[in-house]
Amino acid sequence: MEQRILLTECTDATGLIAKVTGVCFKYQYNIVHQDQFASEDKRFFMRSVLEGNFENKDNFLSEVRSLLPQGAKVRLNDQKRRRLAVLVTKEAHCLGDLLIKAYSGALNADIVMVAGNYNTLEDLAAKFNVPFHLVSHEGISREEQEERMCKLLDEYNPDYIVLAKYMRILSPKMVSHFPLGKLINIHHSFLPAFIGAKPYQQAFDRGVKIIGATAHFVTDNLDEGPIIEQDVIKVNHRYSAETMAKAGRDVERLVLMRALNKILDDKVFIHGNKTVVF
Amino acid sequence: MEQRILLTECTDATGLIAKVTGVCFKYQYNIVHQDQFASEDKRFFMRSVLEGNFENKDNFLSEVRSLLPQGAKVRLNDQKRRRLAVLVTKEAHCLGDLLIKAYSGALNADIVMVAGNYNTLEDLAAKFNVPFHLVSHEGISREEQEERMCKLLDEYNPDYIVLAKYMRILSPKMVSHFPLGKLINIHHSFLPAFIGAKPYQQAFDRGVKIIGATAHFVTDNLDEGPIIEQDVIKVNHRYSAETMAKAGRDVERLVLMRALNKILDDKVFIHGNKTVVF
Amino acid sequence: MEQRILLTECTDATGLIAKVTGVCFKYQYNIVHQDQFASEDKRFFMRSVLEGNFENKDNFLSEVRSLLPQGAKVRLNDQKRRRLAVLVTKEAHCLGDLLIKAYSGALNADIVMVAGNYNTLEDLAAKFNVPFHLVSHEGISREEQEERMCKLLDEYNPDYIVLAKYMRILSPKMVSHFPLGKLINIHHSFLPAFIGAKPYQQAFDRGVKIIGATAHFVTDNLDEGPIIEQDVIKVNHRYSAETMAKAGRDVERLVLMRALNKILDDKVFIHGNKTVVF
Amino acid sequence: MEQRILLTECTDATGLIAKVTGVCFKYQYNIVHQDQFASEDKRFFMRSVLEGNFENKDNFLSEVRSLLPQGAKVRLNDQKRRRLAVLVTKEAHCLGDLLIKAYSGALNADIVMVAGNYNTLEDLAAKFNVPFHLVSHEGISREEQEERMCKLLDEYNPDYIVLAKYMRILSPKMVSHFPLGKLINIHHSFLPAFIGAKPYQQAFDRGVKIIGATAHFVTDNLDEGPIIEQDVIKVNHRYSAETMAKAGRDVERLVLMRALNKILDDKVFIHGNKTVVF
Repeated sequence: MEQRILLTECTDATGLIAKVTGVCFKYQYNIVHQDQFASEDKRFFMRSVLEGNFENKDNFLSEVRSLLPQGAKVRLNDQKRRRLAVLVTKEAHCLGDLLIKAYSGALNADIVMVAGNYNTLEDLAAKFNVPFHLVSHEGISREEQEERMCKLLDEYNPDYIVLAKYMRILSPKMVSHFPLGKLINIHHSFLPAFIGAKPYQQAFDRGVKIIGATAHFVTDNLDEGPIIEQDVIKVNHRYSAETMAKAGRDVERLVLMRALNKILDDKVFIHGNKTVVF
Repeated sequence: MEQRILLTECTDATGLIAKVTGVCFKYQYNIVHQDQFASEDKRFFMRSVLEGNFENKDNFLSEVRSLLPQGAKVRLNDQKRRRLAVLVTKEAHCLGDLLIKAYSGALNADIVMVAGNYNTLEDLAAKFNVPFHLVSHEGISREEQEERMCKLLDEYNPDYIVLAKYMRILSPKMVSHFPLGKLINIHHSFLPAFIGAKPYQQAFDRGVKIIGATAHFVTDNLDEGPIIEQDVIKVNHRYSAETMAKAGRDVERLVLMRALNKILDDKVFIHGNKTVVF
Repeated sequence: MEQRILLTECTDATGLIAKVTGVCFKYQYNIVHQDQFASEDKRFFMRSVLEGNFENKDNFLSEVRSLLPQGAKVRLNDQKRRRLAVLVTKEAHCLGDLLIKAYSGALNADIVMVAGNYNTLEDLAAKFNVPFHLVSHEGISREEQEERMCKLLDEYNPDYIVLAKYMRILSPKMVSHFPLGKLINIHHSFLPAFIGAKPYQQAFDRGVKIIGATAHFVTDNLDEGPIIEQDVIKVNHRYSAETMAKAGRDVERLVLMRALNKILDDKVFIHGNKTVVF
Repeated sequence: MEQRILLTECTDATGLIAKVTGVCFKYQYNIVHQDQFASEDKRFFMRSVLEGNFENKDNFLSEVRSLLPQGAKVRLNDQKRRRLAVLVTKEAHCLGDLLIKAYSGALNADIVMVAGNYNTLEDLAAKFNVPFHLVSHEGISREEQEERMCKLLDEYNPDYIVLAKYMRILSPKMVSHFPLGKLINIHHSFLPAFIGAKPYQQAFDRGVKIIGATAHFVTDNLDEGPIIEQDVIKVNHRYSAETMAKAGRDVERLVLMRALNKILDDKVFIHGNKTVVF
């Protein structure tokens, strides 16, 4: 018995669950688990974990689609192991976590490459036999650097591109080179507080008692993309901007990892500028 | 359009969701939200928030039942406002929270009576015009005290009896006087740590760095009933058993309130010695 | 043996702890607990819990002052029970918590009055025999309403004025009527995220996964005063702005209460636009 | 200007802070930060971060000792980089975190060796050029295995021995081979709940809503040593014992790392069967 995940997204209407689960029953797909959500603006999202024999899956999908409102997106995940590309600058904590998790079997994906605008983390990637590419920004234009990066990424054909503390702002052109949902960023603040540069310095200057991190999909608007996951830690007057940054690293890597796990489990839908995370 | 909650519990089988949602669709009951869970030991639980016209609800329920495995429990909640009885001893924080929440409309139930083995909190109940009954344990046997309490509770016919820091251990006889699920207790520790008397003193003696509270249904086995909700707070070497107890009160009242809200929203199923909380 | 709290604040210098504790030793004041902090900008803060006989406290204070840098602020708290005035609008949860805590002895202060721009909570204050004053804003200018409120507050001579969901923005004139540190506000967002009106609606619109509350001293700049305490709770796509607001109430009252307890324990220093909270 | 940490522990008495800080002032050691604690059973603990010229430190220490009650322990840390030995079995998450943190400079110590009763993690240690030793328990007695391990550990002369999911119970003989405070264990439950084997299975069977991890010093009594740090995460009915274990790994590594950082910062005192953690 195989397990597959069915993802349904369409305009909300009465009877959607009955219709989809009716077809599942007809094809003898047992529903191991199911989550659904209808938004205030009448959008319906459903994730169904099915168990069965999926030889007839094309017929199954046609039948489901035929019962749903026009424009419905229906997808049965293909169980192929996902490919991750990781972009970095100099900080090791997020990449290190990804590599260790992948190494120990705790990440349900393969890290197929790491690219950085510095080569600081080349050695770390090498320890885990992951190819590292330096795409320096020095001496060339932003456009040129981004073109090289996009070309490189395209060669690896990754399912997701993880900005694991890649400390460069992506131009709208680079963002639009990839479909929405492919670029995932970890931002070192509890967005929308402290948008932009040096969030820990901003947090220190403001005297907040809590700092956080935010994993989000990347869109044209800097730090404004759909939020996937957030978490925080308490700080106090004894923290400098530097010790906040140090303490924040643990939140950053945890938040990024949780977001990534949700995505790899096909639990994340993008809904306008928000997410539905089952 | 009315909203009702449909609760389904039965042996797990293929097609259960399709069957129930199919009947919903037939009766034009829109499923606003639905949660389901199938346990490792093959028990199926589902909570469906339905929207529609429930004039034919008896037919609807018969039809649902006819499709489910034998012994299935199906219930459409009746939307009557629930009645709570609250048992107390001397501590005001849980009762106070309940009364304020009821007063301000934040509790989806009526507190119909308070009973205590001391009269310390009579005045507090009176402020909110809730009848208070003293059922002292002094000078009488445990059995006699419990009989009086049960008789009194029966008169009020409550849906739930909340032990809001009622510092007496209920005898098996008293427990069995009520159906499982009716008696809710807040225990001042992170169960199963520190079972029994003086958990804060035990926590202090052990030198733990975290203390907690546990809301659970009451069963014959002291502190062993199905856990509904738990939460914790951090402590350190500066805490005495007394300051732990003081700090713990906020967790106690929050945990009790969250558990109660879940119950009043019909989100809690009892599953053996555990709970399913949607 | 009496307990008193000594609060020291001055320009940082070598030997400050030795000097102050030396005088304590000379007067046979045992230091039960002591916290100190020197900020990056060279300001020294110390809180010492002393135990002893304080008949000679004036001499003691003179001696301490004589050893500290010029402009040092030294204060031995007087142990008088503090007087709180509470300003409200319509929401009961913060006031309710304050009243219950005061009633049950869990608040180390007296609530001497409640004033509101609506009389919604008059009845609640009355239950606990606390005078309530309606200072409506209807039909009069902001200035006029604030003058009435200030006059009323002055009559009660409170140590602290707690804005317990008082949904009006105080003018600079009203703010400056009181010394910095006297006005305490609970803001229903995790500042500096969602400054201004309707923070829950803003949080909903942004799709955040965490919401929070902030207790801060009130200054001229709206929502920019020194932060005393913050906390957060997790939310998800199922929350509307309304259910966020409902869920947020528990954080608001807890954060306000923790901030207040810190203040009443003389653990809070104001340091520019920040706080030092021991 | 050098920084050193002064650790003082003795019977509590009046004037201890004044005496120690007086000597600091005399030697022109600036106190950058200081924490102290006097326990209910009259034990005094103090940690002072001093800044100055420590050429005369022997005189300084003699002078401090001469002023303190008999039996006082006074220690000025020597700033030598600490040496960690890590014991493992098969799980990679704690060791992986330690290696990455050491590699990236986020651990204030050197990992001088890893030893395991299986060779599963040999390859991981090798990636970071840390010597790995297999000390198998197969085919030999517990005593024999422990003797080999102790001999090996002695050769490396580590400051601390970290049991990073070393899934063997140490005999009293092995425990007593090392001074109290040298052996640090991470236990995969929120002690004292679920002492002993298979805590996640126990947690699953009990139906708890929160699971946790505990870092503690190792003593003769299994899982009863002084607790250094604890933390928890929420779980629900959807978790199996296996998914609890998986989710628990993040808490385990974080709790172990926090405990270790506190120890390496000289912030942990052992006090009977408890700890004082500044």
